[in-house]
Amino acid sequence: MDFKTTLQTAWARNDSLLCVGLDPDPAKFPAALTHRADAIFEFCKSIVDATADLVCAFKPQIAYFAANRAEDQLEALIRHIHQRHAGIPVILDAKRGDIGATAEQYAREAFERYDADALTVNPYMGLDSVAPYLAWPERGLIILCRTSNAGGSDLQFLETGGRKLYQHVAELVAAKWNTTGQCALVVGATFPAELAEVRRRVGDMPLLVPGIGAQGGDIEATVHAGKTAAGAGLMINSSRAILYAGQGEDYAAAARQAALATRDAINRYR
Amino acid sequence: MDFKTTLQTAWARNDSLLCVGLDPDPAKFPAALTHRADAIFEFCKSIVDATADLVCAFKPQIAYFAANRAEDQLEALIRHIHQRHAGIPVILDAKRGDIGATAEQYAREAFERYDADALTVNPYMGLDSVAPYLAWPERGLIILCRTSNAGGSDLQFLETGGRKLYQHVAELVAAKWNTTGQCALVVGATFPAELAEVRRRVGDMPLLVPGIGAQGGDIEATVHAGKTAAGAGLMINSSRAILYAGQGEDYAAAARQAALATRDAINRYR
Repeated sequence: MDFKTTLQTAWARNDSLLCVGLDPDPAKFPAALTHRADAIFEFCKSIVDATADLVCAFKPQIAYFAANRAEDQLEALIRHIHQRHAGIPVILDAKRGDIGATAEQYAREAFERYDADALTVNPYMGLDSVAPYLAWPERGLIILCRTSNAGGSDLQFLETGGRKLYQHVAELVAAKWNTTGQCALVVGATFPAELAEVRRRVGDMPLLVPGIGAQGGDIEATVHAGKTAAGAGLMINSSRAILYAGQGEDYAAAARQAALATRDAINRYR
Repeated sequence: MDFKTTLQTAWARNDSLLCVGLDPDPAKFPAALTHRADAIFEFCKSIVDATADLVCAFKPQIAYFAANRAEDQLEALIRHIHQRHAGIPVILDAKRGDIGATAEQYAREAFERYDADALTVNPYMGLDSVAPYLAWPERGLIILCRTSNAGGSDLQFLETGGRKLYQHVAELVAAKWNTTGQCALVVGATFPAELAEVRRRVGDMPLLVPGIGAQGGDIEATVHAGKTAAGAGLMINSSRAILYAGQGEDYAAAARQAALATRDAINRYR
């Protein structure tokens, strides 16, 4: 089943537009985990098992694994999600961006080694830096458009031929790059008006929306701006607010409560 | 010693503006290596040892290591370069781009785990995606500006306020982002006129120039367009044309000959 179909099925089955971001920072782990060699895997696995019936996707952020020499734990985590929570897609958040021959290697990393259902990529190097991933038609390709950080405006907000750069990227992806139907976009929740601008340009294309929770994006404004006519089309990501909802041994239960509250808050506005 | 000083010393000591890119593809290795568990390390080590007195930098491309589950071999390779060829800087080509907290993890990956002297990064997410690396003032930060691939034009060539996006990036980095003097830019050899445009905007800032050799960039045009008044300022990268100059057991000697010829061809036009 391809990424888009898997995602649509997860939206419906779990009645959820919530994506839980897995950004494991060992400095924030409960004391009982800190001395385990596989602490990163165990922490993420507990979060995954506690929230899998409440989400439409999981999104591990590879930087946290790479900085801690924990690629093997990332492999094990994704394998666990596929085996125990089949039907929940895994988005590898790596924001890759490089030319042809190198992009082919990144595609092998994401889709063969890690078996991710989708990968985030950066559009700065243009279509031939994106094309190699399209050789994997079952996988999703989620392209940065309007990012949630303040500095996102430095380039993305530049005027270029009557529209802003992020609007140009949205149009380019919708009109030209998405020949296989694999593409989705990243649009931050911190800019609801711009989220609406993107939605207007891309039809029902799925949008990955970071920036609620710790970054301050408003759930009501995000859902109103970004949902499709059918009340879906969004993967609204929350990482820290869920992962670190509790500091003690009950962290998984606290994460579940936070995920449930976030999913339900999102659903109130669909 | 900081990256820029190390680079300047290497330029002078080896009389070379050549950077050898380490893109190890096991499918192209000589037969004697293919069954070794550490084939990637051994192949790259042979290339490094055969060319270290002819280059100003080595640039391992992380995608080739990651796709082959060979992060440990990348660590060993960089350690080997630092120990055996002290004074030759290592540029980790990873083109990272993410926001603050995540960029801090990528900085730890590049500068702590791999101990790279410099890292390539993508500017699409703006200053706050670059700032975390500036907390490592000894390390270089090489920002994508005008890339060597055809698709680079898709975004980088857009007109924005009287100049093209890549020119805007060059000006932004030179005028605002380079507060610490750590910054350099990536500008492809396939577009000499644009390389000259960048050089005009950034003074003596080092430029990493991929695209000669397999990608077809012309050495004479590249050196004329990109050199500083002092006849330096460039890290002209060649990967495949050097790594795979020979297919047999003499691959390291063939790589040395190719590196020597390329260094000397560059020096003719300085």
